[in-house]
Amino acid sequence: MFNDIKFNKRQAINVQVYNYIKEIIENGMLPSGSKLPSTREMSIIMKISRTTIMRAYELLNDCNMIYTVKGKGTFVSKMDIATNNGLNIKWGERISNFAINADELDIMKHEKLYKKGMISFSSIAPDESLFDIEELKRSFLNSISIEGKKILNYGYARGYKPLINFLMKYMEDKGVNTKGKNILITNGFTEGFDIVLSSITENGDKILCENPTHNTAIKLMKLHQLKIIGIDVNEDGIDINKLDKAMDNNIKAAYLIPSYHNPTGMVMSYKKREEVYSILKKYNIPIIEDGFNEELQNLGTHISPIAAISGEGNSVIYIGSLSKILFPGMRIGWIFADDKLIDILESVKRSRNIHTSFLDQGILYEYMKSGSFERYIKRIRNIYKEKFELIRKLAKDYIPHKFILGDGGLYIFIKLDGIKARDLLERCYKRNVIFMPGNIFYINDSGEDTIRIGFSKTSIEDIKKGIMIIGEEAKNINNNHVGY
Amino acid sequence: MFNDIKFNKRQAINVQVYNYIKEIIENGMLPSGSKLPSTREMSIIMKISRTTIMRAYELLNDCNMIYTVKGKGTFVSKMDIATNNGLNIKWGERISNFAINADELDIMKHEKLYKKGMISFSSIAPDESLFDIEELKRSFLNSISIEGKKILNYGYARGYKPLINFLMKYMEDKGVNTKGKNILITNGFTEGFDIVLSSITENGDKILCENPTHNTAIKLMKLHQLKIIGIDVNEDGIDINKLDKAMDNNIKAAYLIPSYHNPTGMVMSYKKREEVYSILKKYNIPIIEDGFNEELQNLGTHISPIAAISGEGNSVIYIGSLSKILFPGMRIGWIFADDKLIDILESVKRSRNIHTSFLDQGILYEYMKSGSFERYIKRIRNIYKEKFELIRKLAKDYIPHKFILGDGGLYIFIKLDGIKARDLLERCYKRNVIFMPGNIFYINDSGEDTIRIGFSKTSIEDIKKGIMIIGEEAKNINNNHVGY
Repeated sequence: MFNDIKFNKRQAINVQVYNYIKEIIENGMLPSGSKLPSTREMSIIMKISRTTIMRAYELLNDCNMIYTVKGKGTFVSKMDIATNNGLNIKWGERISNFAINADELDIMKHEKLYKKGMISFSSIAPDESLFDIEELKRSFLNSISIEGKKILNYGYARGYKPLINFLMKYMEDKGVNTKGKNILITNGFTEGFDIVLSSITENGDKILCENPTHNTAIKLMKLHQLKIIGIDVNEDGIDINKLDKAMDNNIKAAYLIPSYHNPTGMVMSYKKREEVYSILKKYNIPIIEDGFNEELQNLGTHISPIAAISGEGNSVIYIGSLSKILFPGMRIGWIFADDKLIDILESVKRSRNIHTSFLDQGILYEYMKSGSFERYIKRIRNIYKEKFELIRKLAKDYIPHKFILGDGGLYIFIKLDGIKARDLLERCYKRNVIFMPGNIFYINDSGEDTIRIGFSKTSIEDIKKGIMIIGEEAKNINNNHVGY
Repeated sequence: MFNDIKFNKRQAINVQVYNYIKEIIENGMLPSGSKLPSTREMSIIMKISRTTIMRAYELLNDCNMIYTVKGKGTFVSKMDIATNNGLNIKWGERISNFAINADELDIMKHEKLYKKGMISFSSIAPDESLFDIEELKRSFLNSISIEGKKILNYGYARGYKPLINFLMKYMEDKGVNTKGKNILITNGFTEGFDIVLSSITENGDKILCENPTHNTAIKLMKLHQLKIIGIDVNEDGIDINKLDKAMDNNIKAAYLIPSYHNPTGMVMSYKKREEVYSILKKYNIPIIEDGFNEELQNLGTHISPIAAISGEGNSVIYIGSLSKILFPGMRIGWIFADDKLIDILESVKRSRNIHTSFLDQGILYEYMKSGSFERYIKRIRNIYKEKFELIRKLAKDYIPHKFILGDGGLYIFIKLDGIKARDLLERCYKRNVIFMPGNIFYINDSGEDTIRIGFSKTSIEDIKKGIMIIGEEAKNINNNHVGY
């Protein structure tokens, strides 16, 4: 930039140089600590004598704009950061409709949040104290020593090849026919679902899902401006009759969570999976299967995903994620689908963020390959199972309910008996207990008498205390009702 | 699922049990290796005698569907994966317009790709052999030992707090006024730009940018269906007169790359930064400043970003990324902008993929905090500088050009003299030399006589060989022209 200087004849050259550099510094163009070219260098750059430069530097030094360290050079002093009134945009008036919706649908901004010291039933994140850090370190060091610097440089949008191959085999082990299929690695389920919706729906399209369903999925379907057809989930799971009646050839896709359905915690029976698949097949409707938490199923009663039922068919888009069980902080998920579809999804992924962290993919691959993942799953299954049984029993005994749903997993779902969830939450929050009001999982904002109780991170002791408090407050509400 | 069995009176119960379980296995519902409940457990589940279950298991054993390991239990044999003809969707007919565009605009699918053994001038990724792996390992182990398991669990959409604080200070060190500003961590520049466009533009809005400009940015602007106003960049950088003439109050934003502009490699002078800022200010147009590769500038001649000029103004959205220099595989970038705007962008980020890998953010924070980053930058600056000077000299000497642009950085940009870039590429490719034809960086597909020569990963030896080959082939084209 120094060679940009234009000299005039009205002023001494050294003063012009002084003013020029001073302006640069004052405008924040040269951060404090920046090294100036030496006087010799500067005289070459500006095409003037070195003496003139030296005199300009002296002037700058006099007003404390620069300082010299002997043998090191000349540096810019701590400068003032510009405080001029630059352009002020009223951003509130410039936000797109999409962003306004994203803000409005963001439950982190509109729901009661956990505060330190509370008993929390709102989270369904895994208990990090169960993570095996030593295995993780080993996986990191292995990955780095095998792949070296490669996984730190740009990778491929599709994902880290060894991880993709591993997951293809992993899908096969679930009984899925992988012929003509492929995998795209994503930043967790959320990105996978967003990429799929971006790629196979247009604004105004119809999409079908369970009601209630995963709140993040509802948010994304709404952000994509889809018409959402919710099929009731009751004590027997998804209502097959209602599903059948809702059918229509114009439905673009069905989003389903067959295992540990969020928020009800139910595992869809294999028979039902078949029924659902065959009804949707009749109407040519693809399924977006959320493989969420499938891994928590006990091996002895593991039910293969709907993707397994479709055999060589290509209508099921399976989105896998280990995020609810293992290292959610890494945000790794995958889309398993028809090969040609994956090819398109890959371009969408690339346009959004080039690819998912190759370092994380490398670590996860080593972790899974080494058998650490399997050992981890076996260990946590029993721990979560014990908590599940405790909480179900306590909830049955202490919380006035119409029914309690959940087949294991990390949460139970309660339809309260004549109590509004938000009234109950209000009272419990005052006593430092928090849970998820069920209505956020409903398409139509119904379910006001339901709550989801997550227990993955809650200690046995807190579970006991917390459920008691919820029970007490529920009874207080009921007693007050009677009183009026 | 086993308790779903319904018995009839026409068949022996053990045969019904056998058929039921056989169907489950054949349908891929029980993966191979799954453990069946013991005969005792199964008799409780199905509410029939244990002897009947034992006889059913024997039948299954006889047809190799299951096998028993003494003392361990009964397992499903390697099963056949379903090959039934499930529903087949013609995905080609179901792809959204957005995905069709993403596919069409994906240069990875439509441009000549690097093959092993070639001399590549197409990449501008950093040279991974310069990465300091030992420092990375130390950062990883530090991060894990300080933050423990926390950074492996869910984090915040905004980003990892210590990294955000570090980057706020980092922006201040660039001379930027951080009052009323905040930071959102993203998966690299690409996601940052996509989130910004999603949040402040609607389809059909006008956006201004340099022409040529970063290809990924063009792709995203097109995917957001924006009307792109390109301002010519010539030997003196962006054409201020044309910028002034293009002004109009309806332009939603200006996307600019002031440092090491991609693809020309030019660094915008501080005076020009001021001029551009003040022209856009007059028309209330926010700037999306791509902080791309700014770190490569020599400290002595570092020019602060446009964000520094705006002082307390809030019209500059600065997108930072170290991806072109350090660990691109991690995909970490950040958006620095008005606090209230960041609050909205955070919700958009959360809707897309919850947050960026906290493990990676933790590692990068440790790496930067420890001073490793500064040391690394100092080291690579000299290495890249040496290559830059070599390649500029060679290009000047051997490639017939109208002009050659580039102020350092990782690439130079050449306007060829009477040669079509794609003809030249065709010939060079046959001789195992690849580079980027310039037209992919132009809004209007012009620039057919320009090429970008990236040298970050190319060895000195390959640079010498490769430029010679490009020069020879360019002359061959010219000679042929003369011959005809």
